Amino acid sequence: MKLKTAAILSVGTELLLGDIVNTDAAFISRRLAALGINQYCQSVVGDNPERLKKALSELLETCDLVILTGGLGPTYDDLTKETAAALFGRGLVLHEESLERIQARLSKYGRVMSENNKKQAMLPEGAVVFKNNYGTAPGMAIEDEVRGKTAILLPGPPRECEPMFIEEVEPYLRRFADHILVSRMINIFGMGESRVEEILRPIMVSSLNPTLAPYAKEGEVQLRVTASAPTEAEGLAMCDEMIAKVRETEVGGCIYGIDAGSIERELVRELTSRRLRIACAESCTGGLCAKRLTDIPGSSAILDGSIVTYANSVKEQFVCVSRETLNAHGAVSKETALEMADGVRKLFSSDIGISTTGIAGPDGGTPEKPVGTVFVAVSYNGVCTHRELHIGVYNSNVFGTGTSERAYIRHISASNALELALELVRGR
Amino acid sequence: MKLKTAAILSVGTELLLGDIVNTDAAFISRRLAALGINQYCQSVVGDNPERLKKALSELLETCDLVILTGGLGPTYDDLTKETAAALFGRGLVLHEESLERIQARLSKYGRVMSENNKKQAMLPEGAVVFKNNYGTAPGMAIEDEVRGKTAILLPGPPRECEPMFIEEVEPYLRRFADHILVSRMINIFGMGESRVEEILRPIMVSSLNPTLAPYAKEGEVQLRVTASAPTEAEGLAMCDEMIAKVRETEVGGCIYGIDAGSIERELVRELTSRRLRIACAESCTGGLCAKRLTDIPGSSAILDGSIVTYANSVKEQFVCVSRETLNAHGAVSKETALEMADGVRKLFSSDIGISTTGIAGPDGGTPEKPVGTVFVAVSYNGVCTHRELHIGVYNSNVFGTGTSERAYIRHISASNALELALELVRGR
Repeated sequence: MKLKTAAILSVGTELLLGDIVNTDAAFISRRLAALGINQYCQSVVGDNPERLKKALSELLETCDLVILTGGLGPTYDDLTKETAAALFGRGLVLHEESLERIQARLSKYGRVMSENNKKQAMLPEGAVVFKNNYGTAPGMAIEDEVRGKTAILLPGPPRECEPMFIEEVEPYLRRFADHILVSRMINIFGMGESRVEEILRPIMVSSLNPTLAPYAKEGEVQLRVTASAPTEAEGLAMCDEMIAKVRETEVGGCIYGIDAGSIERELVRELTSRRLRIACAESCTGGLCAKRLTDIPGSSAILDGSIVTYANSVKEQFVCVSRETLNAHGAVSKETALEMADGVRKLFSSDIGISTTGIAGPDGGTPEKPVGTVFVAVSYNGVCTHRELHIGVYNSNVFGTGTSERAYIRHISASNALELALELVRGR
Repeated sequence: MKLKTAAILSVGTELLLGDIVNTDAAFISRRLAALGINQYCQSVVGDNPERLKKALSELLETCDLVILTGGLGPTYDDLTKETAAALFGRGLVLHEESLERIQARLSKYGRVMSENNKKQAMLPEGAVVFKNNYGTAPGMAIEDEVRGKTAILLPGPPRECEPMFIEEVEPYLRRFADHILVSRMINIFGMGESRVEEILRPIMVSSLNPTLAPYAKEGEVQLRVTASAPTEAEGLAMCDEMIAKVRETEVGGCIYGIDAGSIERELVRELTSRRLRIACAESCTGGLCAKRLTDIPGSSAILDGSIVTYANSVKEQFVCVSRETLNAHGAVSKETALEMADGVRKLFSSDIGISTTGIAGPDGGTPEKPVGTVFVAVSYNGVCTHRELHIGVYNSNVFGTGTSERAYIRHISASNALELALELVRGR
């Protein structure tokens, strides 16, 4: 059986009401692309068996594989399994192993099994079962070998759907592939997406395997390298070769990591391995640098402390910014940023001090220092260095929904402070 | 013309690759529900005119209104407008006003108009044009009065799509309505969704206008009150009556605001109006309380400062937690939390001090103090009070994708600290 084209069908009235965002579809799309499975389209229907049946049978006309999410819960309006089983001409039978797993999970949380939970262990005859390590509803694949069609049913909550896809569905889908796809991510900071594309276009166009694809996210650029190879080792070697090629271009200077995850993750990793500790003095970022560092488990080993110095008096009292500097250059200046970075390093007896000061808006801008004017600085090993930023939001697509310009400016400011620290400790 | 059923059709290969999440669909769904327009389904297709044409004509069979997002950009693969116009039998004509707006926008950013940008001002004959105040692509409605079908085309980037929907599309859609929908949100903290539902079910079931609908979000519960009325004033009065009814129930004690937006927004508002200033000492939240407060514009008027006290030495040195307390009760204890809150209030000479200390995981838990054990405290006006939290993640759907248990625990801890401060200053 070949799985050439796929579709995603999400089930849930809460999606049509906009109460939740369909992150499952984006997640599965990303993973399918990495598996080399072409996605034809996506659909969303409410908890309505008739419409679900119609949508599923239409999608199965066009696609070899339809991945359904949602509607596997224990309540009466969860009918995805029943509808799909009927369409494939299968009855539901009790799956003992799933029943035991549900029982074990419920008793772990001190709950009693209800009739509704038992319903979750009733699975279509002959289905391939996917274990759920994060909830009660098992996932499944229903295969029609004659027509060459497969439906995969997954629970809707992302915390169940995502790990089940990675741990259970991907190994299942790989059986249908005659090659392995290996992917690595190059993390770039300090160069815009269009400039990265311009520089790398010759490589992107000429190389079909591995492929090189850029995309922008929250003020950074990521380059995805994907190789198709008979074995993982060969695929990785192909990726490494491509990464080396990219490093030789002008983009090379802006690479801060490979599969780094994020700037803060890379910085925590770097500081941990070098046994260095850091402290933050944050004005316009108001705690965001510390928040992002402490998002990373194990960050307590590298963070001495952080202080939010919103008021000038706090800047003077705690991180030793001199009144002369504040009077001569203002709180938003490179001089203040540098004194803050050095001051907070001393305050917490840290190896590294980082600082931010600027105008995040929406108010507070002046003609000389408009909204988006930010200074970040780092003090380390006798060196103090800074960056002057002028953050504008011309391209409206740089950030997700609900994010104001203020949030964007704060995010980019924190990214710069953290990345500057990374550069300085690496001696770049 | 009546608009009874709607569908959303999102256009963009980046959605099928999972490079972006379809937040537009969730946003528009929410707004359509508030307008009382029933949504039948959603679809996503790539930048492929044939599939787009097929999907659009199928949806127009079933629905009165199809809202399309994406594919209005200036490049060659943006073909939504051309495809929809052809399906409605319309040619494209130059829309002078849009051309002028595009020109003005580009020159504001020092850019020159390209042929591609001019293409964006070519609109279907007779279309209703929606101004774009956040980008170059105008939106539009194409109406087929004979068939009673309408297609609305909107730009894909959320920062353009969302304000255009609110400012331009909603007034347009209201013309088709014979009543006004007025909505208010009741913000609840400290009671789970199922308990809220249990208490309010009699009201929810018996009241059809206004309706009362709960939903859970990031550890809070929101109740949406929606009234349908001939005028806004009547609708608001009906909502107020419902809010008063809810206040009389057991849920009333957990209401922290009406249309508050978030706990931090409500707290900034409350402190601003009372002219009170706050300071934070954060251990397990690592800057998140300060970050959330400073997310709110104008928070500089109420935040004196914040300190991240990860290390015990920092707790002792800066916020005056006594060594005896640390030795006798440990860093994760109500005693430490209380001393931190009082200490940070004194450190920054603030009116209010708040603190968090706990085990956010994934490591660091013990049998006595497992991961999720957190103490938050507030010091204000001679009173020190605390909350002891045991945060577990049984229900996997409490938080969005990509969010670990650690992030959830940190979020709930910060919410509790901020909400406790709100309670204390209000004297509840």
